[in-house]
Amino acid sequence: MEPILLKNCKFIVDAINPLRKNKDILIKDGRIEQIGENLSTNGFVLDCKDCLVIPGMINAHTHSSMSLFRGIAEDSKLDEWLNKKIWPLEAKLNAYDCYVGTKLSVMEMLFSGFTCAVDMYFNMKDVAKAYIELNFRGVLSEGLFDFFNEEVLDEKLKYAETAFLDLKNIKSELIKPSFGPHSTYTCSDKLLKGIAEISNKYNALVQIHVAETKEEQELCIRRYGLREIELLKKLGLCNKRSILAHVVWLSNEEIAILKNTGAIAVQNTISNLKLAVGSTCDIRKLLNSNVNVSLGTDGPASNNSLDAFEMLKFSALFLKNMYHDPTVITSREIFRIATYDSYKLILPEINGGLIREGYVADLSVLNLNSFKLKPITEDSTHIINHLVYSCSGLRAKHVIVNGKPSILNGKLFNSNEEGIIEEFEKVFYSLLNR
Amino acid sequence: MEPILLKNCKFIVDAINPLRKNKDILIKDGRIEQIGENLSTNGFVLDCKDCLVIPGMINAHTHSSMSLFRGIAEDSKLDEWLNKKIWPLEAKLNAYDCYVGTKLSVMEMLFSGFTCAVDMYFNMKDVAKAYIELNFRGVLSEGLFDFFNEEVLDEKLKYAETAFLDLKNIKSELIKPSFGPHSTYTCSDKLLKGIAEISNKYNALVQIHVAETKEEQELCIRRYGLREIELLKKLGLCNKRSILAHVVWLSNEEIAILKNTGAIAVQNTISNLKLAVGSTCDIRKLLNSNVNVSLGTDGPASNNSLDAFEMLKFSALFLKNMYHDPTVITSREIFRIATYDSYKLILPEINGGLIREGYVADLSVLNLNSFKLKPITEDSTHIINHLVYSCSGLRAKHVIVNGKPSILNGKLFNSNEEGIIEEFEKVFYSLLNR
Repeated sequence: MEPILLKNCKFIVDAINPLRKNKDILIKDGRIEQIGENLSTNGFVLDCKDCLVIPGMINAHTHSSMSLFRGIAEDSKLDEWLNKKIWPLEAKLNAYDCYVGTKLSVMEMLFSGFTCAVDMYFNMKDVAKAYIELNFRGVLSEGLFDFFNEEVLDEKLKYAETAFLDLKNIKSELIKPSFGPHSTYTCSDKLLKGIAEISNKYNALVQIHVAETKEEQELCIRRYGLREIELLKKLGLCNKRSILAHVVWLSNEEIAILKNTGAIAVQNTISNLKLAVGSTCDIRKLLNSNVNVSLGTDGPASNNSLDAFEMLKFSALFLKNMYHDPTVITSREIFRIATYDSYKLILPEINGGLIREGYVADLSVLNLNSFKLKPITEDSTHIINHLVYSCSGLRAKHVIVNGKPSILNGKLFNSNEEGIIEEFEKVFYSLLNR
Repeated sequence: MEPILLKNCKFIVDAINPLRKNKDILIKDGRIEQIGENLSTNGFVLDCKDCLVIPGMINAHTHSSMSLFRGIAEDSKLDEWLNKKIWPLEAKLNAYDCYVGTKLSVMEMLFSGFTCAVDMYFNMKDVAKAYIELNFRGVLSEGLFDFFNEEVLDEKLKYAETAFLDLKNIKSELIKPSFGPHSTYTCSDKLLKGIAEISNKYNALVQIHVAETKEEQELCIRRYGLREIELLKKLGLCNKRSILAHVVWLSNEEIAILKNTGAIAVQNTISNLKLAVGSTCDIRKLLNSNVNVSLGTDGPASNNSLDAFEMLKFSALFLKNMYHDPTVITSREIFRIATYDSYKLILPEINGGLIREGYVADLSVLNLNSFKLKPITEDSTHIINHLVYSCSGLRAKHVIVNGKPSILNGKLFNSNEEGIIEEFEKVFYSLLNR
């Protein structure tokens, strides 16, 4: 792998370190080898004198193939949306469709500041292919449910393990295989317990939807006499390897379990507002309770964009409104959650989310000439304010993931935007006519 | 003025007409002269075969010069923000600063789909210069207050009229002069009554902040025994020419007054959430009560972006959440408010906000190749879903205002982006060191 030198970076900003100015960043073997002055390399040199370098962000919950369903049925009730529009189309999806839908989403995520996504869907081997092709990091899991049909239990558990091993066998540094039982209302307790056991065997992450709606909690209580987090704990699915998406409707007892087990609570503000589940995950309360917190966009059919900066803005603003207090969360806290905290929680085996020597080289390089970043001062807080409050839709100039270029000079390095869009449209129209 | 022909527009979408496909739009003398096939002109021809043409949107409340303060003090209480950061800098602002700050904001608005803004600040003659230079439409008013000091009343009223006439005398089709008493808590009832009289004389619009906070309403009740809208009605400032920004905290009686007088209620969701005033204007209730409704971004120091698409998304999503009902507002309603309704209410003297023959040529032309607009079908609802839910940060390819180009092929027609940013930074740094 050729070294990359980010030359004369005007500003380097992360959520913890002081602002650095006019420094070079030398990237080698996937890591930040050195940050200094007058560095040189026989590798690739990128002039960054008009640029701001920031750590990449993690999208801790999405379903990237669902770009194929973006905008086709909005402003409707969840059950109508699922039954009449999404599920009939989803039933026709093949592996190639998922690969192509994912490419569009990964492109969108890369341009907007993400360098990794936690993604649950179907045909994940083909999804992984898209991630690797565009040089994007993925924590991938095959979505799983049994709809409480005991007859399919063994088959489903076997399928889950096979799908996991398929991802593991790709042996890519970019792909972290995980398990994806959909939720407590689509998976039986036996299936969930089975997944807990297999995931323990592989020491693997498990992603699951939890407490997105009040109704879902009520159903769980009727079925098991337990709230969702209590059930998951009992089944062995509430620990440091558990990525719990949504967690909107939590009791104080459930929050205490999250704290004690170290499970990761993923806020999905935009999706929660759009699907009108009644609120969004209160990360202020969770942070104050020492719960591990991360942020996600949810899928492109329920957001509908996969924009990291927009995610930060909605997340911060919703909390300010919820507490009727503009000081309740700072831009730096939100930015830290999406970068350093998320890397630490979701990819603890690599040091990431900060721009420090020895840390993994997952970086976004932004052109400081955008009006979205004006005015600017040599104050990292001012710069982070822009990232959180005025950068929705900003396109990164360069993106480096695992030390390799994903975007260079505003263009995909390993593919081309027009080609991906053309392929995507072809698949979409064929899907409509199937 | 040279005619402009938008040739082979792939899609033409507005909030009311059915989708039109592969049509030409001929623009002459500021108007849409003809929509048809095989049209020709001896003027300017723009190939739009990969484009979506939409009507321009109105930003019904902003303070564009405040781009100079963007991001400098976030996550703090309103009074601290004003007293420690904004006011000391504002005291140093000169007319040239306002001109330069406005240029950055107008550029941002043009690129994001706006073709007009309702703008209240200081040095509005110089603000108007920026609007005209970039070919952007403005309803402009000099901000006015007397802080209940009777001694300055006559001087302030004279100043208001002079500033209004200064704008009127520019005699630009782009500039609509108006009056801008700041609010009921910064202007005495005598000043407000005086402004009502002068504005009647000129049949002019009046823009004012109303009911942004609960405290502001309580203050008004303590001072006058009336709620703000009741006071404004009594003083002659609640009629079809009244543009009332924020209107978050309204009683049912106040809503009835809005309905009966035809005053224009302007929702500013993003600003309300960010400053954490406790809620945002409930336009569902207002629309159901037959109140005239429009949307605004508020200024770049309290939003912090001036992005039309982002404004639409926040507006729709907040309502869905507020009502716990995803069907409470549709993307088409939100889009109609920002286009057709706002033009009808704020610029009733010209027909705008729709793409129809005879209507004013205020148009945005978007490149359909953006991933933000994918997938796409020949269904105007699907396309409007994208505009509202996934287009934050999209940059228009061409923008036409009053029949003249403002943006062509992604670049400002009458200026250049780099030059504006350079000038802006120079002014900002000089302001910090004054």
